[in-house]
Amino acid sequence: MKKIILFCLCSISLFAQNKPKNILFLVGDGMGVSQIYAGLTANKGHLNLEQFKVIGFHRNQASDNYVTDSAAGATAFAIGKQTYNGAIGLDSLKQPSVSLLELAEQKGLSTGLVSTCDITDATPASFIAHQFKRAMHEEIAKDFLKTDVDVVIGGGRKYFEARQDKQNLLDTLRKKNYAVLGDIASMESIHRGKLINLYAAENPIKMSEGRGDALLKSTKKAIELLSQNNKGFFALIEGSQIDWGGHANDAPYAVAEMIDFDKSIGYVLEFARKNKETLVIVTADHETGGMALMGGDMKTGEVKAAFTTKGHTGQMIPVFAFGPGAENFSGIYHNYDLFTKMRDALHLGQK
Amino acid sequence: MKKIILFCLCSISLFAQNKPKNILFLVGDGMGVSQIYAGLTANKGHLNLEQFKVIGFHRNQASDNYVTDSAAGATAFAIGKQTYNGAIGLDSLKQPSVSLLELAEQKGLSTGLVSTCDITDATPASFIAHQFKRAMHEEIAKDFLKTDVDVVIGGGRKYFEARQDKQNLLDTLRKKNYAVLGDIASMESIHRGKLINLYAAENPIKMSEGRGDALLKSTKKAIELLSQNNKGFFALIEGSQIDWGGHANDAPYAVAEMIDFDKSIGYVLEFARKNKETLVIVTADHETGGMALMGGDMKTGEVKAAFTTKGHTGQMIPVFAFGPGAENFSGIYHNYDLFTKMRDALHLGQK
Repeated sequence: MKKIILFCLCSISLFAQNKPKNILFLVGDGMGVSQIYAGLTANKGHLNLEQFKVIGFHRNQASDNYVTDSAAGATAFAIGKQTYNGAIGLDSLKQPSVSLLELAEQKGLSTGLVSTCDITDATPASFIAHQFKRAMHEEIAKDFLKTDVDVVIGGGRKYFEARQDKQNLLDTLRKKNYAVLGDIASMESIHRGKLINLYAAENPIKMSEGRGDALLKSTKKAIELLSQNNKGFFALIEGSQIDWGGHANDAPYAVAEMIDFDKSIGYVLEFARKNKETLVIVTADHETGGMALMGGDMKTGEVKAAFTTKGHTGQMIPVFAFGPGAENFSGIYHNYDLFTKMRDALHLGQK
Repeated sequence: MKKIILFCLCSISLFAQNKPKNILFLVGDGMGVSQIYAGLTANKGHLNLEQFKVIGFHRNQASDNYVTDSAAGATAFAIGKQTYNGAIGLDSLKQPSVSLLELAEQKGLSTGLVSTCDITDATPASFIAHQFKRAMHEEIAKDFLKTDVDVVIGGGRKYFEARQDKQNLLDTLRKKNYAVLGDIASMESIHRGKLINLYAAENPIKMSEGRGDALLKSTKKAIELLSQNNKGFFALIEGSQIDWGGHANDAPYAVAEMIDFDKSIGYVLEFARKNKETLVIVTADHETGGMALMGGDMKTGEVKAAFTTKGHTGQMIPVFAFGPGAENFSGIYHNYDLFTKMRDALHLGQK
């Protein structure tokens, strides 16, 4: 009897350890198995992704198409429902549904969005906005004002300050006590409070054009600011341009963006190991390009790739998990199940 | 103190549960992520593979080529060493190295090989033979006589009985008390002892040509016979022709073979759930065809695929594990690490 009680106690204590306070949700847009492995090859046989022990796969069909786009894909993550291609935070009946980020806000957690594309682009937008079409950048930008998101770092400044309706949303955000910045370097002096840093008027440039460590610095700053909340935080960090390398059927482009994204993965894992209360999830919305590895060399980093399409493909996508509760992300499930798993991990589903 | 001791006891008992007595190693030749998902789609949204919770990936470069063939791939599984394309049970210096199947034999376990191709073809051959080139079918067949393999079911009868050297290896096997059969149906009457059933003179026919449930029946019979050994067993079960569908860039061919293979996966999982001492590993040697899913329909089972090559590609390959010790197969590792993991799971490494 004593044994049973003690075993139960052990189990309870193990269970308690498995509830994280924070979630860092990293999305490599268009990052299928081939993109990952092309990056590993180009990086001469190593990626930080190799540190993950828990791996799953998600199925990612849209409600109106076997092959998802980033909007339906990210909306499935964000609201937990299969939806139509192009939908931003709306279900398949075009109804808005509360997002993980909004739930986290409601529970007093800090929240953040980081990308290397327009912050109004489909993936980050789906977590904070509710609009019929992904192209509605200005409407999406306006939705940023409806939340108390704490950290926003990416491109797309023009949708906030050079708008058809002549409103300057950045002025409004300043009044709401956000530090409003327009470049990566000036983030260094910010060590507390809310931050919106739209460091490019439109999409940030490619790695090959000199983007440097913008994503890594954004990731570090987001974590520095968000982790000051004792109630915890939820952040989406997107490596946005792996997808664009796929669309361009440009392997060096996809690979450079993959390796850049992996650097942020490395930092996030380093943080999570020390922090101990952070669940890290890395996945993609879909694969882009039908990329295949025709050859390569782990010593030189050479990658020979071929593609079947300038668009997306419908294959299942790996999910990598680390930290308390990671074990719930193994197996094969739907992309929208990631919403439920993350919501429950942070206890955001309870009234 | 008492708590600590009891916790340790709990841990030890959990640990003890994690050592299997049997391993069923299932290889879907050429089965990359796209082949799996094409099968799931064609099967209207379901595969037995979805039952697995533990998932890993293996890296599978050959010693002389970024893109492996089935010989180097299976030899890596079988002997735990990276080797050159074409090698059967030899390392990169062309030296023979003891295989998992041979280690299992040495320890008194029963062993089996099941395939839907010539049983002398690269994948099964690498577990039982040691030859310079995969094309040396007759030499490979002769190597079957050097072991005490218990169950052999597949094609390639001609390499045993219509040989250049005029020897009839099947006669020799009969003298060694094997039941020697040449068709699937007559296996039904065999319920004990050693069995070699080469049910086709060369490669068995395709599913689309009427192979029926040959693989499932082979799998069931192998398990029925091998599981009679109280010391345990090791068996390789190959879904061989997924690869050939890829080589032919013929999606319906690959898909039909994938679904056929998945039926055996289902039976193996059913057995392992009841048996409780069986570790099930499902993986592939490599991906074939650079297959991409361009579209599809989960309701009708329609699959639209495109390919980048008539050969293999170099991407990492998923590993699915179930049963005691399954947790050791998560994460990303090399194909040759599967040898070590399986050897250690069955305690085959100890003198």
